[in-house]
Amino acid sequence: MNIRLYNARILTMEKNRDVFRGEIWIKNDKIVCIPEIEELKQDWNKRDVPRISWDIELDCKDNLLMPGFKDAHTHSGMTFLRSFADDLPLQEWLQHRIFPMESKLGGDDIYYLTKLAILEYLTSGITGIFDMYLKPDQTAEACLDTGMRCVLVSGLNNFTSSPQQMEEEYLKWNQKNSLISYQLGFHAEYTCSKELLYKVAELAHKYRAPVYTHLAETAKEVEECKARSGMTPLVYLDSLGIFEFGGGGFHCVHMTEQDMNTMRMRRMYAITNPASNMKLASGIAPIAQFEKRKIPVAVGTDGPASNNCLDMFREMFLVSGLSKLKENDAASLDAMRVLRMATVHGAKAMRLHRADVLAKGKYADIIMIDLHQPNMQPVHNIPKNLVYSGSKSNVLMTMIGGKILYRNGEFNIGDDPENIYRKCGQIVKRMMTG
Amino acid sequence: MNIRLYNARILTMEKNRDVFRGEIWIKNDKIVCIPEIEELKQDWNKRDVPRISWDIELDCKDNLLMPGFKDAHTHSGMTFLRSFADDLPLQEWLQHRIFPMESKLGGDDIYYLTKLAILEYLTSGITGIFDMYLKPDQTAEACLDTGMRCVLVSGLNNFTSSPQQMEEEYLKWNQKNSLISYQLGFHAEYTCSKELLYKVAELAHKYRAPVYTHLAETAKEVEECKARSGMTPLVYLDSLGIFEFGGGGFHCVHMTEQDMNTMRMRRMYAITNPASNMKLASGIAPIAQFEKRKIPVAVGTDGPASNNCLDMFREMFLVSGLSKLKENDAASLDAMRVLRMATVHGAKAMRLHRADVLAKGKYADIIMIDLHQPNMQPVHNIPKNLVYSGSKSNVLMTMIGGKILYRNGEFNIGDDPENIYRKCGQIVKRMMTG
Repeated sequence: MNIRLYNARILTMEKNRDVFRGEIWIKNDKIVCIPEIEELKQDWNKRDVPRISWDIELDCKDNLLMPGFKDAHTHSGMTFLRSFADDLPLQEWLQHRIFPMESKLGGDDIYYLTKLAILEYLTSGITGIFDMYLKPDQTAEACLDTGMRCVLVSGLNNFTSSPQQMEEEYLKWNQKNSLISYQLGFHAEYTCSKELLYKVAELAHKYRAPVYTHLAETAKEVEECKARSGMTPLVYLDSLGIFEFGGGGFHCVHMTEQDMNTMRMRRMYAITNPASNMKLASGIAPIAQFEKRKIPVAVGTDGPASNNCLDMFREMFLVSGLSKLKENDAASLDAMRVLRMATVHGAKAMRLHRADVLAKGKYADIIMIDLHQPNMQPVHNIPKNLVYSGSKSNVLMTMIGGKILYRNGEFNIGDDPENIYRKCGQIVKRMMTG
Repeated sequence: MNIRLYNARILTMEKNRDVFRGEIWIKNDKIVCIPEIEELKQDWNKRDVPRISWDIELDCKDNLLMPGFKDAHTHSGMTFLRSFADDLPLQEWLQHRIFPMESKLGGDDIYYLTKLAILEYLTSGITGIFDMYLKPDQTAEACLDTGMRCVLVSGLNNFTSSPQQMEEEYLKWNQKNSLISYQLGFHAEYTCSKELLYKVAELAHKYRAPVYTHLAETAKEVEECKARSGMTPLVYLDSLGIFEFGGGGFHCVHMTEQDMNTMRMRRMYAITNPASNMKLASGIAPIAQFEKRKIPVAVGTDGPASNNCLDMFREMFLVSGLSKLKENDAASLDAMRVLRMATVHGAKAMRLHRADVLAKGKYADIIMIDLHQPNMQPVHNIPKNLVYSGSKSNVLMTMIGGKILYRNGEFNIGDDPENIYRKCGQIVKRMMTG
């Protein structure tokens, strides 16, 4: 498929490049050219331009094209728990609501529950997810069937999965499939024995691979780890050799100076989940402090049981707003830096090096943002409009790997949304009565 | 016009009434009947049912009807400043960015800038606004021409308006026009001389009327008032007799126990603006403390220069989320209480006693929420879905006074949105170059 997106404003998210007017040319799943309007006015015959016969030519009507958002921490399959266990503190929420319900998951439940999440990602312009959940195979199948780009990460713990299973999944899902990849990981320090963590470290060394985990989400978690080990979770995990090849921490709310030094040294990513941390009263992550220490920050929604929605516009506003509150400084974390976190840093944290910016040779993971809506007017400053007044209602189109999966409110994912709603409703009903 | 909304789920927001299935019948600008589905199945011929021939019958397709949101603090005309002066602390923002630009407003600028805001209110299901800005006459005209319900409140201060002008406006706009009303007010303690404030108190006593003002938005404002008067702004203003007949404070972030006692005694409303308070790093208002002391809380977006969007879904999530953070308690402020603030309390704070809930005789200020979108599935709990995962993209219809002003993304406000965008763009351009 050859697609031409024309009459557009373009924000490639390449460093120091402003919004410009031009076109994006796509061949199969990749971008082949992003000509600026000035170039197009010149005589293209004399230049080395790909001769393409277009399958689709789409007039963008002066709206914005930009890289899709990367949701760098989520649990897609948890859609069944949305609005089921709100207004509870994290440990109670986890032990008394989430775990008992999860034990009832069976059959192809996670496949359909993930599809429900995928519908929502697409409405919010999310083109890549970093997904940790039970039964990664079902998550992968849902992503393959719909066209969602997904990096799986193991949620290994004392009760679920095993180092062997993680290794098998790692090898299976890192085969050459452009949509799915897999990273080593585990649920959290407090759900894994030392023996298990040593095995994770072994795998990290064997494959020279980064490792990802929930990290310092609550003060309680940090205190308990210190009581057990004399160390903060990050320092303890690092002492076992887990982060020798980098990786990242999800949440990173309660961090010490030593933690941040370790992250910097290990070139780890801090993956922040501000809505979830607010809703569970976990705290505000020190994003401005990470930035000051050059620790790259990516952004995730966390799962729909704790957030409760999968909306990167909400997260972006919160990353900036909560940082301003925490630092008591309205100048903290301006819009462009937050946009970079939600796109470029997210892709890098997930090792999606071909999905970070819009450029020749990169994946065509592109969204179109409607500037002709009242919340995007007047057009003083597009990045600020996106972060401070943007909304998923501005997402006109979501394209992943050159396929238009969502446009003007309609989905093109090989399944009917009403069918997915019905299936998920049935799953919930069965669980409630079972 | 007689309108029948059928095949709906209905959340009237009356106390202790859950969502039910039924219809809403509207005659001109008011609701005449809200039959439940069970009632409709009975023989209506034998009952005292209004015989209505319908002008419009709308199948709601099992979606939700509820009262429109009340934006209890905004400055609509400030749309021209969206994304113009971000990432600055409040005083610098106000003195060096906002005031100089405002001095360039002229002609019918505010009329068009307000129309831009109205488009945005409608997309977010806002059916009533409490608007404080320069030239209230232009704001009123924009609301009358489009059909928006508006309570004007004076922004009187040492530099703008006068007690005489406020009194004239009060008398003019409280004539029998169902869409527009007017409340006494002033900008803030720190922009008004004692003489001016005494005159405000005189008017409050003359008309036995409530008074509204910006209150305790920043720590600096409170400290400076204490240095000048020995009192907090609220106690100082109350000592002048201003709140004898009630009223309300916008923001109310930095409040003492004595402040809250005064609010309770004067039956005042605390009108919270969480997004603005975050973005300007002003702090988190003590909403749970207000609730504990039975001080009613309403919710506002504040103006688009500080927020930067006019979206009650964002505000609702923040009211709950920030309260959970501030109280360090994930159980703080559950969804239903927040929904009441954004609808019922808002209407009462604005003295819109006919626009608080859906019931016979109330204004037909109704919104339809799409439950057939992924962020609203599964349907465990509709109020929680609205507050925690709801979005303006779920607003299918916004009706004010029985008129459908917005439906399926299309506006019916007597003007073309593109014309409004163009006009506002021209205003901004003139200001930037002038």
